[in-house]
Amino acid sequence: MGTSDDGDVRGQLLAGVELGGTKCICLLGTGPADVRALEELPTQHPDLTLARIEAVLDGWRAGAGFAALGLAAFGPLDLDRRSPRYGWVARTPKPGWSGTELAPRFARRYMLPVAIDTDVNGAALAEGRWGGAQGLADFGYVTVGTGIGVGLVVNGRTIGGANHTELGHIRVVRIRGDEFPGICPFHGDCLEGLASGPAIAARTGSDPDTLAPADPVWAQEAHALAQLCHTLVLAAGPRRVFLGGGVMSGRPLLFTLIRQCLQESLNGYPATPEVGAGIGSFIVPPALGQLAGPLGALALAQDALLRAVPMRGA
Amino acid sequence: MGTSDDGDVRGQLLAGVELGGTKCICLLGTGPADVRALEELPTQHPDLTLARIEAVLDGWRAGAGFAALGLAAFGPLDLDRRSPRYGWVARTPKPGWSGTELAPRFARRYMLPVAIDTDVNGAALAEGRWGGAQGLADFGYVTVGTGIGVGLVVNGRTIGGANHTELGHIRVVRIRGDEFPGICPFHGDCLEGLASGPAIAARTGSDPDTLAPADPVWAQEAHALAQLCHTLVLAAGPRRVFLGGGVMSGRPLLFTLIRQCLQESLNGYPATPEVGAGIGSFIVPPALGQLAGPLGALALAQDALLRAVPMRGA
Repeated sequence: MGTSDDGDVRGQLLAGVELGGTKCICLLGTGPADVRALEELPTQHPDLTLARIEAVLDGWRAGAGFAALGLAAFGPLDLDRRSPRYGWVARTPKPGWSGTELAPRFARRYMLPVAIDTDVNGAALAEGRWGGAQGLADFGYVTVGTGIGVGLVVNGRTIGGANHTELGHIRVVRIRGDEFPGICPFHGDCLEGLASGPAIAARTGSDPDTLAPADPVWAQEAHALAQLCHTLVLAAGPRRVFLGGGVMSGRPLLFTLIRQCLQESLNGYPATPEVGAGIGSFIVPPALGQLAGPLGALALAQDALLRAVPMRGA
Repeated sequence: MGTSDDGDVRGQLLAGVELGGTKCICLLGTGPADVRALEELPTQHPDLTLARIEAVLDGWRAGAGFAALGLAAFGPLDLDRRSPRYGWVARTPKPGWSGTELAPRFARRYMLPVAIDTDVNGAALAEGRWGGAQGLADFGYVTVGTGIGVGLVVNGRTIGGANHTELGHIRVVRIRGDEFPGICPFHGDCLEGLASGPAIAARTGSDPDTLAPADPVWAQEAHALAQLCHTLVLAAGPRRVFLGGGVMSGRPLLFTLIRQCLQESLNGYPATPEVGAGIGSFIVPPALGQLAGPLGALALAQDALLRAVPMRGA
């Protein structure tokens, strides 16, 4: 596809929807420098939530319009293109959402290019396009909040095999003596079960936002998240890993602890600059901040439109 | 590049060298159905080993010749194309081999297209081209022997970020009560430190080949390798995972135990057929058997030649 086509596509108005565990953000624009509208809704029962999202999108369609739609959703999603449920929510602990149709529902309604991926893969793509991973082909995006989600870009693309990346559910070693049973309904003491926001609350009996930086829970948290970073380094050789979400936001000390734990755990192997002298620019907060998620949905819309261009010309 | 070019390339005679921890295998041919020559050498000091490999290749060059060379080597390797030491052995516990030049040395000598990757990435590519992963874009290849190596193909390509895949060095949870300190010189009780052939020998005081199928060490081994498979599933969504190497070879019961442990560990999440009803064709031995490694080197040679074709025509 030619440069002029790409240029046309990049100027088009797009809609993106980030479906999060607690809230949904609908965004209309062409990129971070040109956000025309932003609507936030609580995530409730799927029927109600999706109807409210459609009401927002219907309004935008009736106004300036949009050329494509991107959906960046909490997982797990069925992203196997050979599956009859491609673009649906798969089996999830989130009440009412297992087996909810997403992408095909919106494609039927708006008859436009629609793309779907996980919220964290979307956020990773947004960091690659407009944020802190521009020019990088291999990087990761982690969110630590209600759950722990991981998006991975490998050779410039997100992973699309039998399932999308779900590294929040790996099992990790503990600090000796830590016997907290974990809260993941599937795996008990997997990473998400040990270190998500609700896990911290269950460990301490306190809202994580009220815990002092010196609280011993942060050493456990850093140790657990460093194990994830250790695994990420050895799995996919990322050039950078973004750590976002409510638990990471505004906690520079937690970043410092994670960097220390990661270097101790890897102990010089592999001997790359990223996990050596460059650790400070390797484990970083998202450059796009809170907008990484909804801008991820916009990046997916842009990709959907780019893929559709040759078809429109045919 | 056109079909006829591809056809030309696929018929060309190629040389592949698998540099393993204990032996090196040099192979001349066009694929598994057409192996013209195979030479096996012990892996000794790098100067001696590489000179003996060159003597084999010199002989083949003086005879039928070869159009490209593939190197599939134990790691860690520097595979960062921006690095001045691209294609060298990086820092390794293997005595004498840290900082050994590999690919550029052979490129200078033979003035032909040369490709290099890890032995396990090579084996994965060979399984994709000629073996049990034909038609799959996402799969993994694990070898369990002197070390534990993991090759990963994602979206049809191996990973080439800051470092290649090294998932043999992840940290894994233990069976309760297992206090073996591990033998990895970098990480102590990482997976390789707990479950490689030498680790089994250190645990039991016996050569793994002499241990009965009912020995309790195999339950520990299956638990550790199932943790790797758990992580692989969540990292890269593979469609199939091959388990090869000396520790896996001829041990169908170990495969059964690993499949059971993996399903228990994942506990239905993610809910894909691969780790559900299809588990028996998901965790499998290499279809190419012992030749997966050297054929991996040949697959790399073929790739090097395919990449060089447009340059030759220019």
